[in-house]
Amino acid sequence: MFISQVDEDVALALVQPSFAKSYFSIVKRERDYLAEWLAWPPHADGEAFFSAFIESSLKGYAEGKSMTCAMLYKGEVVGNVSFNVISQSLKKVVIGYWLSKDFQGKGIASRCVTTLTDIAFNQLKLTKIEIAVATGNTPSRRLCERLGFSLEGVITQAENLNGRIVDHAIYGLTKPR
Amino acid sequence: MFISQVDEDVALALVQPSFAKSYFSIVKRERDYLAEWLAWPPHADGEAFFSAFIESSLKGYAEGKSMTCAMLYKGEVVGNVSFNVISQSLKKVVIGYWLSKDFQGKGIASRCVTTLTDIAFNQLKLTKIEIAVATGNTPSRRLCERLGFSLEGVITQAENLNGRIVDHAIYGLTKPR
Amino acid sequence: MFISQVDEDVALALVQPSFAKSYFSIVKRERDYLAEWLAWPPHADGEAFFSAFIESSLKGYAEGKSMTCAMLYKGEVVGNVSFNVISQSLKKVVIGYWLSKDFQGKGIASRCVTTLTDIAFNQLKLTKIEIAVATGNTPSRRLCERLGFSLEGVITQAENLNGRIVDHAIYGLTKPR
Amino acid sequence: MFISQVDEDVALALVQPSFAKSYFSIVKRERDYLAEWLAWPPHADGEAFFSAFIESSLKGYAEGKSMTCAMLYKGEVVGNVSFNVISQSLKKVVIGYWLSKDFQGKGIASRCVTTLTDIAFNQLKLTKIEIAVATGNTPSRRLCERLGFSLEGVITQAENLNGRIVDHAIYGLTKPR
Amino acid sequence: MFISQVDEDVALALVQPSFAKSYFSIVKRERDYLAEWLAWPPHADGEAFFSAFIESSLKGYAEGKSMTCAMLYKGEVVGNVSFNVISQSLKKVVIGYWLSKDFQGKGIASRCVTTLTDIAFNQLKLTKIEIAVATGNTPSRRLCERLGFSLEGVITQAENLNGRIVDHAIYGLTKPR
Amino acid sequence: MFISQVDEDVALALVQPSFAKSYFSIVKRERDYLAEWLAWPPHADGEAFFSAFIESSLKGYAEGKSMTCAMLYKGEVVGNVSFNVISQSLKKVVIGYWLSKDFQGKGIASRCVTTLTDIAFNQLKLTKIEIAVATGNTPSRRLCERLGFSLEGVITQAENLNGRIVDHAIYGLTKPR
Repeated sequence: MFISQVDEDVALALVQPSFAKSYFSIVKRERDYLAEWLAWPPHADGEAFFSAFIESSLKGYAEGKSMTCAMLYKGEVVGNVSFNVISQSLKKVVIGYWLSKDFQGKGIASRCVTTLTDIAFNQLKLTKIEIAVATGNTPSRRLCERLGFSLEGVITQAENLNGRIVDHAIYGLTKPR
Repeated sequence: MFISQVDEDVALALVQPSFAKSYFSIVKRERDYLAEWLAWPPHADGEAFFSAFIESSLKGYAEGKSMTCAMLYKGEVVGNVSFNVISQSLKKVVIGYWLSKDFQGKGIASRCVTTLTDIAFNQLKLTKIEIAVATGNTPSRRLCERLGFSLEGVITQAENLNGRIVDHAIYGLTKPR
Repeated sequence: MFISQVDEDVALALVQPSFAKSYFSIVKRERDYLAEWLAWPPHADGEAFFSAFIESSLKGYAEGKSMTCAMLYKGEVVGNVSFNVISQSLKKVVIGYWLSKDFQGKGIASRCVTTLTDIAFNQLKLTKIEIAVATGNTPSRRLCERLGFSLEGVITQAENLNGRIVDHAIYGLTKPR
Repeated sequence: MFISQVDEDVALALVQPSFAKSYFSIVKRERDYLAEWLAWPPHADGEAFFSAFIESSLKGYAEGKSMTCAMLYKGEVVGNVSFNVISQSLKKVVIGYWLSKDFQGKGIASRCVTTLTDIAFNQLKLTKIEIAVATGNTPSRRLCERLGFSLEGVITQAENLNGRIVDHAIYGLTKPR
Repeated sequence: MFISQVDEDVALALVQPSFAKSYFSIVKRERDYLAEWLAWPPHADGEAFFSAFIESSLKGYAEGKSMTCAMLYKGEVVGNVSFNVISQSLKKVVIGYWLSKDFQGKGIASRCVTTLTDIAFNQLKLTKIEIAVATGNTPSRRLCERLGFSLEGVITQAENLNGRIVDHAIYGLTKPR
Repeated sequence: MFISQVDEDVALALVQPSFAKSYFSIVKRERDYLAEWLAWPPHADGEAFFSAFIESSLKGYAEGKSMTCAMLYKGEVVGNVSFNVISQSLKKVVIGYWLSKDFQGKGIASRCVTTLTDIAFNQLKLTKIEIAVATGNTPSRRLCERLGFSLEGVITQAENLNGRIVDHAIYGLTKPR
């Protein structure tokens, strides 16, 4: 397992084949919860679904286009956080994440997003972080706001969640000069 | 030439190989003008550039993902207007266009965008039109506003114009019920 | 719909995804009639068959290798007429077509072939039209003869119509100098 | 070297990488002679040209679509003879060949075509042999006629020989019942 | 059939599509016998299995990477012998083979391997022959030893025979200077 | 940077794009030293060489076929160690490595190979480690011997080091039951 430590309890681990088992066990348990704001949970019907996701994520990492990590809490896989897009051309990344219901409220996602922000600004030398949140997803909008992101706009008809077309609140954080 | 008539003077023609010559002749003449808000004019170094563009545009049309048309004024190619994206899943299209400097001020682009809006709403049965305009591109922003589009937001670091990274004003028009 | 008008009643429309429905409705009604001289009708088991055909036809058009049109009569799709091959190297096209039984006898196919001949000679600057007709297909042979094509030969074992191997009468029309 | 013996002096050898050298040495010596009725000699600028030809020919053989042989005379490579097309669907093959000028007049090509005819009819169980000859290529037309092929037609604008567009005489031989 | 004669009774024939039938008829009869030291027999469920094998073998031959032959005894296909690898870079080939149980004890495999050794050393100008034999396959190990190959080592966990992982005895024969 | 700690001073870091710079700076300095037993140093002509290597290594990792790590000493990239092959089917891995001359003699490679051995046996649940060493590479052979690997054989003509064909000593370590 290849790790980037966030703090004593929390770490980011680059996805690896063996995580398919952990991801599937979360989704099996919390499918309805995760499906509220994610499109893929209804389709995640076995470990093979995540094996394919992990393989394709690592290929994106191989090409420098994305970086997909498990969030670890005390060594356990509890969610996923990613640079869904790494754009050298636009000097920005787009971040996405999901976290097991059972590990909400501990600041895990916030700490991971903060670490990724630091990587984007200081290691990758980029200047903007973007997060798109479905307008109705209040907890994620609050997280963006707490971390100092600005609301740049609300783009209508931006994502299809298994038949429900939702609007996206676009949040941005620009590197301080 | 396959045509969709807009009005007596103006028509949309699905791109075809022979248009490469017309496109290149406009760009050769107006490269600096077009490069102000488009990324490709500095790279358009011959008819072959447009032949490749046309081939790839027709493949997008073949797959139902996009539709790229020349704007004709009195039978002459004077610009380009496209569904850059046709998304059945999001029930929306994204429109883009450019028009020769010599043919500005005649309402050609407005009339073509209006026709595409009609095609999107009434033939393709979609419900939203989206146009992204660099924030500094006042004439295009005015066109969106005149046609009744709403400003949904300003997304920072949204396009790289040969080294200059610009923000996008996102305009949307929703089908009236 | 992108149109090239032939005369008041007849037009050529470049194939587009929405035609799959029209094609299938003709074939469902006239499968046996069309299967007499065409290989594909027994395999055309739904609109998806024509969607795939249209996508592949538009890719051929994108590459400048073919051009596939619906024949429209008073705005209705009544058949198909194509440059199956556009050969710049041999300065010729090969034409093929089929027409709904219900619209025979109105000169629709003749008028469309004449328009395509004009496009080949005058727009594409080619010098020969070739049409291959199964030897037993008397109506199509008559059409070629009426339009002034010469019989260049009878090539044996030239096409397999679902198990029946037929000979081809090859007709040619050379551009008058 | 894998061989199919024709008679004491003549054999067919399936093409193999080491033949590139022999083919190129013939073409270097007789380029003008061969270019009279073949399109490729002006482009055969080294052994690599034939290595690519041989690789692609063996792939055609691997797929059962063609079979390309060197003609051997007393163990020496003196030309090429092929099923350019093997069509199970039409129950026919198309034969093509070329022979070094220095080995003309010995009946080598005739004997090889006769052997291929036998293979097509008796091993592959096909029923027609087709040979296309440029109308001006009198020696090849005589060979077809001597071997009992019928002239099925003259197809105009059938081949481009480096800018010269020639007509094809199509010869056919049907398996006797 | 393209042949390389070994002696009066034995010949090598480059694989060709029609051999699929012969291969399958041996395997159907002797599946258990062949499965003792080969991985594929349990999967060879029809002629199509061998058609695919032959196509892929001929593509390897087309690329100069391998050469796969049927062993013929008095004109009948009785087994297979191959350069599984032809490495110009390492100046060596790797040989593999199998022979019908009914034709064991006649020296057929030995004679074919000797012929391939001669082709590798004298036609391909390579300097080493390598054969990997499962350690328990006594008859094949004896053949290598009789032909003067040296045992270079025993590599553990070298091949998976449908679930049984076996070690390989690696035999080598170097070209005498 | 994603890390797997070996001990206080030494760590394995999964390769990532930013390592291209570090790898190239070692190779530029020590090209002759590394070229003694590796084929690639003469071809490593810039950072792009290693960017391509890293991308392809991460794709191998994505597919579960290999795992390529930098060796870090006190946080600095000092060499590379990999599962060149991960074979679930044979339940083994093949390890390869190289280390900067300046960091020899500190046990870094030994400690990393020991960690990979542990990963292979205990995380991946495989049962054999294999290392191939050119026979003349005494330091690497000693490392294998010190770590308890057995010599399984010497395979002749096993690797081409820019024209010099060398033999491989194959070392194996089997998981104790």
